[in-house]
Amino acid sequence: MRYEDEYKRKTGRSAKLFAESSRMHINGVSHNIRYYRPYPFVVRSSSGSHITDVDENCYTDYWAGHWSLILGHNPPQVAKALHEQIDRGWMYGAVNEQTIALSKMIADSVPAAEKIRYTASGTEAAMYATRVARSYTGRDIIVKVDGGWHGYASDLLKSVNWPFEGSESTGLVGDDRIVSVPYNNLDDTARILDQYSERLAGVIIEPVLGGAGCIPADDDYLSGVQELVHKNGSLFMLDEIVTGFRFGYGCLYSEIGLEPDIVTLGKIIGGGMPIGALCGKEDVMACADATKRERSYVGGGTFSANPASMVAGSATLAYLKKNQEIYKRIDNMGRCARDGLADALGGTAVVTGLGSMFMTHFTMGDCRSVEITDAVQAARCDQEKLYRYHLKMITQNDIFVLPGKLGAISAAHADADIDRLVVAAEEFRRDEERAK
Amino acid sequence: MRYEDEYKRKTGRSAKLFAESSRMHINGVSHNIRYYRPYPFVVRSSSGSHITDVDENCYTDYWAGHWSLILGHNPPQVAKALHEQIDRGWMYGAVNEQTIALSKMIADSVPAAEKIRYTASGTEAAMYATRVARSYTGRDIIVKVDGGWHGYASDLLKSVNWPFEGSESTGLVGDDRIVSVPYNNLDDTARILDQYSERLAGVIIEPVLGGAGCIPADDDYLSGVQELVHKNGSLFMLDEIVTGFRFGYGCLYSEIGLEPDIVTLGKIIGGGMPIGALCGKEDVMACADATKRERSYVGGGTFSANPASMVAGSATLAYLKKNQEIYKRIDNMGRCARDGLADALGGTAVVTGLGSMFMTHFTMGDCRSVEITDAVQAARCDQEKLYRYHLKMITQNDIFVLPGKLGAISAAHADADIDRLVVAAEEFRRDEERAK
Repeated sequence: MRYEDEYKRKTGRSAKLFAESSRMHINGVSHNIRYYRPYPFVVRSSSGSHITDVDENCYTDYWAGHWSLILGHNPPQVAKALHEQIDRGWMYGAVNEQTIALSKMIADSVPAAEKIRYTASGTEAAMYATRVARSYTGRDIIVKVDGGWHGYASDLLKSVNWPFEGSESTGLVGDDRIVSVPYNNLDDTARILDQYSERLAGVIIEPVLGGAGCIPADDDYLSGVQELVHKNGSLFMLDEIVTGFRFGYGCLYSEIGLEPDIVTLGKIIGGGMPIGALCGKEDVMACADATKRERSYVGGGTFSANPASMVAGSATLAYLKKNQEIYKRIDNMGRCARDGLADALGGTAVVTGLGSMFMTHFTMGDCRSVEITDAVQAARCDQEKLYRYHLKMITQNDIFVLPGKLGAISAAHADADIDRLVVAAEEFRRDEERAK
Repeated sequence: MRYEDEYKRKTGRSAKLFAESSRMHINGVSHNIRYYRPYPFVVRSSSGSHITDVDENCYTDYWAGHWSLILGHNPPQVAKALHEQIDRGWMYGAVNEQTIALSKMIADSVPAAEKIRYTASGTEAAMYATRVARSYTGRDIIVKVDGGWHGYASDLLKSVNWPFEGSESTGLVGDDRIVSVPYNNLDDTARILDQYSERLAGVIIEPVLGGAGCIPADDDYLSGVQELVHKNGSLFMLDEIVTGFRFGYGCLYSEIGLEPDIVTLGKIIGGGMPIGALCGKEDVMACADATKRERSYVGGGTFSANPASMVAGSATLAYLKKNQEIYKRIDNMGRCARDGLADALGGTAVVTGLGSMFMTHFTMGDCRSVEITDAVQAARCDQEKLYRYHLKMITQNDIFVLPGKLGAISAAHADADIDRLVVAAEEFRRDEERAK
């Protein structure tokens, strides 16, 4: 394939190191999605909007640390906080004032965060969310949406990938207690919720479907599900690990006017350092009170609330709070990216997203007849073309969007970066036309 | 209680901050075990063998970041690596050379680590271990030992705490597939393994029971279980999250001559930064190959193999490898601590442990008639007295062992620290005698 040969020529040292990595790691990577054909480049360093590989290729980075780096790579204000913390210790394993400082900021801006429990990852936060929902209600079924992604916890590994029909893994037990519903389809969702009403512990949804296509939920869908769930005495849980502090200072659900019982956070609130947070209403979280004999075992872990993650998170949130015009600026770049890409790709693609997030979907026919409102529609798009598109950008334009995934714009990006993105898309369209 | 009043007098600012923390966090903490009566002190900073609270009390720290800090707090060689990495980025979300460097060191010293997958925590690593065992064998039962602690994953929350008889949490599903066996009792273990033989996916054991009492496994027990498990076509899994690189450069199992199929690592290999690692034999880990349709979904996560954790781990292991006399020194301090404490406490306590780890158990009668070889025996000891003992040390001696837990000695500790520990124990014994 034309881009692959060119990619190999510019990433010779990566090829060698990745071969070494493949001997030691499953599929050569430390996270399944980090692999792409012919092999991923190997990173050496990062700065601002850029990530640099071992061949000294310097890419404009829209993958941005799994979309966690809203201020870009190693922004000075967060780096300063980390440098200071390194000299005061990065592992206390105890209650610390750094945690109290971060929690104050979260409690002040996320109404559902009446009680917080930090974890090392979003996977852990989602695992605890399901556990608390089951404990609180005494019921067993957790509902998620087709394509919904909440990390690798055993309690949520169903209907993540096409064809969204079953468990995502061998070796699971109890996965018959996970039920998946069609995203943005309130009628079908209502029917399924009704079917399981007596056993329904809770529903967990990303307000913008992330990994499965960067697709915002209809406001009516979310409020409709919330109403049904609450009427049923079940918990309404929002996974805002990607969306929290991404579109404004706080959570997306507040802007939509929702009232979730539990919210999971991660990514941005840790400033790129390892973090997850289970946030919930006081009466719900009370079932995790460890002094009770019967309790939902919500732990934490060795690294929960470690002071390095806490100060990186605090420095990030403090900067965002003080500079909220950042959101206007990156949202505007997001809009330019979506409009510009759609325009550049003509009738061949739909570009979805919200605020500073965007994702290109190459439709099989004329894009005007295609809607992308759920994971099924996104999965039916031309995945091979999407891969070529992203690999072309990596290879010829030094632009990195993880192949097949959405892109996120940070405060470190400039308008000129978006222009370059659009130019790359135009080139790709011409390449494709020539190749026909 | 006498120590509590004194504790409150010296930790006034902690009391105020902990009240604030309690408003925002479940039980005021970010990990259940970090709470103790009347309230935990609130940490401000750490350095070497010390941790300092917000009232400027400076404690000699044997809790040592959940026993992860074998070189002490912020050791200069690790701090240097972290400072350098901060300026080159702490979140790549991609394959990176920092990971390859750490994995080389682990692969060279842990024979079972033919393939490695990093996670954000030990909880995640243990979760994947159970998933892989079930995937590889096509069976569903996971066996653990009474008191065995492998983190908060839903797949392992049984028989962790006294009376070691049931699930540790409400809100679990599939926990009927976890079976617990008596530690260090090969006959009873064999009987139960036999009972489940057709359904047995694997057994997971800490070679030194950690949270449940710092009790080394009998070599015969581990090799006996390994033999039974392997004969049955099931996986033998060792949780070396606490013990890996704690007693020598590599894993404890190598010294005992075991051949586990899967080993989980964490703590020391990340130098105190968030990490977990699922390590396993190539043919076992092959079931997690993401390119296969049927695969064990072993992920990673946003923060897996982040470069900050990777360089902190590499700097720690490199230093340990070059300075292996450290092990001799801290093991010797450990022996002095165990002998000295047992001596100081007269016939009232048994001190268990291995190498640089030690734990005091106050027996109900004369300690000469009591054996501590499993979690049940440890739990039957006088927990209230143990709490007084640890609180006395915090209050009157500025020595911090997390109340009720084991202590770990680091390279930053000195012989004089152990002397002070023993003196504190002598004082405690006299206090107790006077109080009678």
